[in-house]
Amino acid sequence: VQVGIDIGAQTIKIGVKDKNGGYKIKTGIKTEPDFIKTAHNLKREIEKSFGRASLLIIGCFGPLDLTKKKIIKAPNLPGWAGVSFSDWEKILGCPIILENDANLAIFGETKVGAGKGYKIVAGFTLGSGVGYGCVIDGKIYHGNWDVEAGHMVLDPDGPVCGCGQKGCLEAYVSAGAIKRQFGKEPIYMKDERVWDFVAKKIAQGVQIITVSVKPDVFVLCGGIAQHKGLLKRVKTHYLNMLKIYPKEAAETKIMTGKYIEQAGVIGAIELPMSS
Amino acid sequence: VQVGIDIGAQTIKIGVKDKNGGYKIKTGIKTEPDFIKTAHNLKREIEKSFGRASLLIIGCFGPLDLTKKKIIKAPNLPGWAGVSFSDWEKILGCPIILENDANLAIFGETKVGAGKGYKIVAGFTLGSGVGYGCVIDGKIYHGNWDVEAGHMVLDPDGPVCGCGQKGCLEAYVSAGAIKRQFGKEPIYMKDERVWDFVAKKIAQGVQIITVSVKPDVFVLCGGIAQHKGLLKRVKTHYLNMLKIYPKEAAETKIMTGKYIEQAGVIGAIELPMSS
Repeated sequence: VQVGIDIGAQTIKIGVKDKNGGYKIKTGIKTEPDFIKTAHNLKREIEKSFGRASLLIIGCFGPLDLTKKKIIKAPNLPGWAGVSFSDWEKILGCPIILENDANLAIFGETKVGAGKGYKIVAGFTLGSGVGYGCVIDGKIYHGNWDVEAGHMVLDPDGPVCGCGQKGCLEAYVSAGAIKRQFGKEPIYMKDERVWDFVAKKIAQGVQIITVSVKPDVFVLCGGIAQHKGLLKRVKTHYLNMLKIYPKEAAETKIMTGKYIEQAGVIGAIELPMSS
Repeated sequence: VQVGIDIGAQTIKIGVKDKNGGYKIKTGIKTEPDFIKTAHNLKREIEKSFGRASLLIIGCFGPLDLTKKKIIKAPNLPGWAGVSFSDWEKILGCPIILENDANLAIFGETKVGAGKGYKIVAGFTLGSGVGYGCVIDGKIYHGNWDVEAGHMVLDPDGPVCGCGQKGCLEAYVSAGAIKRQFGKEPIYMKDERVWDFVAKKIAQGVQIITVSVKPDVFVLCGGIAQHKGLLKRVKTHYLNMLKIYPKEAAETKIMTGKYIEQAGVIGAIELPMSS
């Protein structure tokens, strides 16, 4: 069976397509600080839930070297820095396709979610970090390495980001950035001025991708995107900022993802069926 | 003969491929305030210089509606707002392919200039406005309308741009923007602090396109790009801003265009030979 896997810094989701065309997904598997131990746990969980795997499609936090199947940096999980998923292929006994987790989330939304039926779908995953993905004609767009537009610099003298840059979009709107700037975790944040600030930064990111890539739809995934009223604020700021296109040019449709938290694992499950 | 045409707000360049594979280019044809009068002048110039045209490939300032062959807005040339190049087809007696002028400049640099041999080439044209183009696998990338990344919003509360937005890249680094902000035309501007400011904004634009599109090379065309020392300053700021990619990821090569002012007309000449 082909198994889709979405690896976060804290937990892992695994899933397969069921015989009715839906998905069987298991969430909450712990991401161990030890990379190898995690593989052994996963092997057990996969066999228990779905049987023997023939192919794993893994979406993982980055930055990644997709060709070498390696994690380059892992600031939130130091034991995972520099590891290679080739080692997992030996433990799990089957080949692995590695992808950027945000790419798979936007791919999942394109295949079966909010972006279904559109030719060019771009989106941010707004959570502990800010991921970006773009799907053109049903294929994930990589560029010459991989796109990481959550780290577009909005202010070269802005706050320091986990990636080492200053003033990235992520340094303003990720869960950690909201806490650093305003003193509270997003789930406890009630101050709508803070959410307006966050929405305006996200809107700026969407404006920039719109003029650079001109997608048909822009999908906002991840926990931050679920905050009530955020989408409306993003749209309002976006329309205030974007004047360059004439009315005849259809505006980019901005929407929240259909699968929000599960888009990544669904994208992983769907990936091999689409190539 | 197939004729490439690059229309600027002040002058027009026309050109054809010569029999040795080089180009015959005529510059300095006046852009008349009257759209139709310009067509009659052009017809005469083309016949005098190259003979009868069988196809015109026109790069024009925008925003354009490429499907309807129309100019949507023309703030610097009011008589050209809303005109359609279909009217020129009747006067000039041959079909017209319309393209965004920046797209053709980057296309020209990709075919025969600084971007030659690369798979993904992006670039800005830095002049009276800031154009953007991207060529992927030898084809101009349009998105669902056309890309206009010179109008990426760097500061939603920044200076007003000619396009009606605030804080666009163009509102900081175009020739007009430099004059508005610092009181002198770029050719008379000797203050290197100003050029450092301009270089830092351009570098921010290049950083943003890098994380969003990840091209192999980034080409800077147009008059502003020719300022001595600017390229070096852009590179320095860019490397200070870009930390997200590991060393293993080849950095985007930033270079000035080979044809700087003539890339657009060369791109127009080359376009039909490449499709």
